Order: sequence, then C-alpha cells, then structure tokens
Amino acid sequence: MTTRPCTLVLGAAGFIGRHTARSLAAKGCTVIGVGHGRWTADEARAFGLHRWIDTDITLDALLRLDLAEHVDCIVHCAGSGAVSYSYAEPWNDFQRATVTTAAVLEWIRRQPHRPRLVFVSSAAVYGDQGDTDTMETSMRSPISPYGFHKLSAEMLCESSSRFFGIPISIVRLFSVYGEGLRKQLLWDAMNKFDRGEGQFFGTGNELRDWIHVEDAANLLTLAGLSPQSDFEVYNGGFEHASTRDVLQHLARAYGFGPTVAFNGETHKGNPGRLTSHCGKTSRLLGWTPTVRLQEGMNRYVTWFKSQRTTLALSGNARADE
Amino acid sequence: MTTRPCTLVLGAAGFIGRHTARSLAAKGCTVIGVGHGRWTADEARAFGLHRWIDTDITLDALLRLDLAEHVDCIVHCAGSGAVSYSYAEPWNDFQRATVTTAAVLEWIRRQPHRPRLVFVSSAAVYGDQGDTDTMETSMRSPISPYGFHKLSAEMLCESSSRFFGIPISIVRLFSVYGEGLRKQLLWDAMNKFDRGEGQFFGTGNELRDWIHVEDAANLLTLAGLSPQSDFEVYNGGFEHASTRDVLQHLARAYGFGPTVAFNGETHKGNPGRLTSHCGKTSRLLGWTPTVRLQEGMNRYVTWFKSQRTTLALSGNARADE
Repeated sequence: MTTRPCTLVLGAAGFIGRHTARSLAAKGCTVIGVGHGRWTADEARAFGLHRWIDTDITLDALLRLDLAEHVDCIVHCAGSGAVSYSYAEPWNDFQRATVTTAAVLEWIRRQPHRPRLVFVSSAAVYGDQGDTDTMETSMRSPISPYGFHKLSAEMLCESSSRFFGIPISIVRLFSVYGEGLRKQLLWDAMNKFDRGEGQFFGTGNELRDWIHVEDAANLLTLAGLSPQSDFEVYNGGFEHASTRDVLQHLARAYGFGPTVAFNGETHKGNPGRLTSHCGKTSRLLGWTPTVRLQEGMNRYVTWFKSQRTTLALSGNARADE
Repeated sequence: MTTRPCTLVLGAAGFIGRHTARSLAAKGCTVIGVGHGRWTADEARAFGLHRWIDTDITLDALLRLDLAEHVDCIVHCAGSGAVSYSYAEPWNDFQRATVTTAAVLEWIRRQPHRPRLVFVSSAAVYGDQGDTDTMETSMRSPISPYGFHKLSAEMLCESSSRFFGIPISIVRLFSVYGEGLRKQLLWDAMNKFDRGEGQFFGTGNELRDWIHVEDAANLLTLAGLSPQSDFEVYNGGFEHASTRDVLQHLARAYGFGPTVAFNGETHKGNPGRLTSHCGKTSRLLGWTPTVRLQEGMNRYVTWFKSQRTTLALSGNARADE
C-alpha cells in the first residue's frame, strides 16, 4: 500500500457506507464513493469523500470507471439491507445482494493488481441458531430470502478467493443502528412514540446483538486496512439486548409515557435469538467497540428529535404522516 | 395435471436437454423447448419437440414468452456444464448457472399457478468427499467455481421453495455421457485415439460415477412427473469406474493399440473420487437406470465412428484437426 491508501466505498451514500467512508478518511485514506445518492459538497466533505461517482454497480459500469488512482481496498456496502424487502421483491434483492457482489468480484479479477474486498455480509446468513452466540464457524442456515442472497454472495467471495486469488474479508454485521438510520425497528419505534403508539410486533423477547454504526464502520475499516490473511470472516456485534429492553429504553429517553407492549406474534425470517461471539474479531483485528448500547440509544433519540425539529422548521411533511 | 402434461425444457438443444425432451415426449408430455440452437424439423420431431422457442433465458425474455399452454413442469437444463469454463470465464458461468436459475424461479413466482421446477444440478456441489459415496445429505463443499455457481443456484431454489411455495426437484447428476456428447473426457479421448495419441492428464485412478444420458433424462422426467414432495433432492449416478478403466475400454472398443498412459498430475477442481449413493432416487422415484457402462461406451464408440464418417463424406473439416 502507498502511504495514503486509496479505498473505494460502494454504496457510500447509504447508512453504513457513509460512516465507513468517514472512518476510512479518518485513518488517512483517500476515499472514493461509488453508488447512487445525492450529496451536497458539505455532506461529501463531512463524510470524508475525496470523490463521488454516481453510477449503478454493474460489471459494465465498473469497467467504465475512470480511476487514475491505484485502489488498495474496496468496501462493498451496497445492497438492500432489509429482510422484508427480500420477501416482497426477491428478484431485486438477489440483484442487489448477489449479482452486484459477483460484478465487483469480476471487476477485481480483471484488474492488473487485485485490491482487497471487504464484503458487508449479515448475521442473516446464520438463521436461527437457537440459544447460543454464533461463531464465524457456525453453520450458515438462512431463514429468509435476504439471508440466502447474502449467503450466495459469500459463496462467490469464497470461490473468487480460492480460485482467483482475490483477497477478501467478509464481515457479518448484526443489528446495526445509529443516528441517520431511517428504517428498521428503532426508526419505526420512534415514529410510533411520536404518534403516541406503544404497540409492537413480536414477543419483545427477541434477543439481538446491537452495534452502533460507528463501531461497525471502524470494524470494516480495520478489515480493509489491517487484514490478517487472504480470506477471513468476522462477526460484528457488540451488546445483547432484547427488543423489549431496547424499546423501553428508547421510550424512556424519548419521554414516552405509556407501556411498551407486544402482540406476541412471531415472524418468519425473524429468529428468537441472533447474537454473536466476536472474540475472533477483537483478537485478530484489535477491534474494540466503544459506543455502549444505552449511550447509542440516547444519541439516536437526540438525533431523532433534532431531525424532526429540522423538518418541522423547513415545513416538509414527513413521509409517514 | 391435465391428461397430457405440458413441460418446458430450458436448454433443450443441449446434450442433456434434448434427451430430456425426448424422454418427456415418450411419457406423453407436450414438450416446448426453450433456449438457443438450430433445429431442423426432422431433428425437432426426433427429440419430441412440440414447439421450439429460440431465446435467451433471462427474466425479461421469459416474461415475454407467449404461452397459451398451461405449463405443469419446467426442466432447467440450461448452463455451461463445464468445470474448465468456470475457471476461464467465471462471470459468464455465474450468469449461466446462477442468474438464469434466479430468472426462472422469479418467472415461476409470478405465474398464477406455479409449475414444478426440476433443476439440473451437479455432483460438483459436493467437492471432494474423500473415499465415500456421497448422499444427498452430504455436506456441499465445492472445489471449483462451477461447483460454487451450482451451489448458489441450489440455494436460490431452496429459498424459492421455502418462502414462495415453488415446488422444486433438484437432481445432482454425476458424469453424464452418451452419443452426441462433443466435449469432456470421452470426446477428447476418442479424438486422441483418432490421432494416434494415448497420453492423458491425471493419474487414471480418478473414480467417477457414470450415467448414460438416456438414464439421466429418464431420471429428470420422473422427478418432473412423479414428485414425492414440495422440495426434494436426488443424486443421479450409476456405475463407478476409474478413468483408466473407462479409457482402456474405449481404446479397445475403438481398436486403439498403444497403451493408455497418464501423466500423473492432478487438477484443481477435480476430486480423486466423486461417486454417488442413489438409493433414495431408486426408492422414491422408482428410477432404474438401464444402460450399463460397457454397453454405453460401446455405443459411444460406434456413434463416434459414424459421425466421423458422416463428416468425412460431407467434406467438413473437424474443428480439432
């Protein structure tokens, strides 16, 4: 690597992508963002982007990229990131999760030197492992189309590493959250509290491993810049908590009075427990997550309130109102 | 099913596809062939085609298919079928093996009634299982890009069956051979003998499970017309034989005098043994392969000589001369 490594972040306008760009820039990288999204100059600077390339992530588009830079590492954050979407639009989810990954791998294979790929995978590849923390070596047995599509993408990574010598780090992220996340449980919860509602789907006992997006971005950065071997897989999770505990904490921090309640239903594709053992990640990469769950939730509530205020001031209607 | 089931054969112009079309027609099916290839009217009739649709197998092309018929079953034989190709052209092999399968599954998902899919998979998904016959429940652990692409396609089948209710039979074929096969070991061997060469790659001890294409086609037909459950996986192999035994038999049948010799090298992606246990296939589908290896080899040699004569008479140069 040169003194100033050059990294591509695919899907850099997304929730995990933009934090990863910022984290890489903070480590001294030149960061080129690739994907779809509109950035103001201020935003792009704030998230550490040296350059932004607005394009589809297809093999043809990648082959047309005009990169003067010698790319050392690619972090592939593009994809849908939503289990529910994969049930509604399995073909599109397959394109986003699997085919984009195949395209990136093929593009790397055709480069004269082959940059490392950090592939952002998901705990969803594990499926339901029962009452245990999953290890990187646990059997992968998805229980949603999303999990199968991510697993297929992992298989392509393994194939490309073994047969074409592409260095790869797979990072299986658990429940990533943080300021700026406008989907999934926490976002839905805050909007419900805002409307005075406290009834939720599920039993409340679903156990998840939560990880703040800054810690996730830091992990992806370490995987890209400090790899230990040509092919490696890391779990990325931090603190276990039940949905009930998380939502009760959010409610308190928000000042929502009524009791948080659950309808007791379970959902296909939604395991009772999905928690990680991250000893390998800490030991090999020296990764030390720092944002404790309570602090992260408080920050999320503060951010939620501030963006609501901003929207109200700017006169924009909220999409969910 | 109606009294006369309607089946689509994808890749019907290929080696396995055309025999499958013939087998389905012999069982009373209306067979519509889909894929690329040129057929004379005589050929199409000989292989039992009711209709031929010349098209790519993409989602868009499938959605444009103008089918008045109610399709009961689809046998998906399209794909490259060659391990070596997957090393040379991994992106194209991924498209042929995995993306076409995803397209077919999505097309089925969008149909008002969902025909069964018979997916032609490969023993390559097993990789190297050591000194044992593989069962359908054996760990899948490919050792070639081709194997990974077929495995990814199997995962998509599993996902589509579990989450979208598509009935699926996966058939993992072992070493399929027979008259008309113009690639792979037997074809290469006959051409070598024809040139007076008897030196081969490998140790000669590679153990494979051989299955004549007529038996393979019969198995695919049974899987399509007599399914036992909504998702099932079958091995398709018949007789174990080493590469040495097969080539020595071919040489004798052809009248090739010199000793068949091996260079002793091993090839990545080429396991020492790849043999099947087919008890489940026989028991559940009532499948009884009939073409013994020696008979099949003799037929192959006879066919090879006849097509060489035909080519010589028609004045065509052979591609490999």
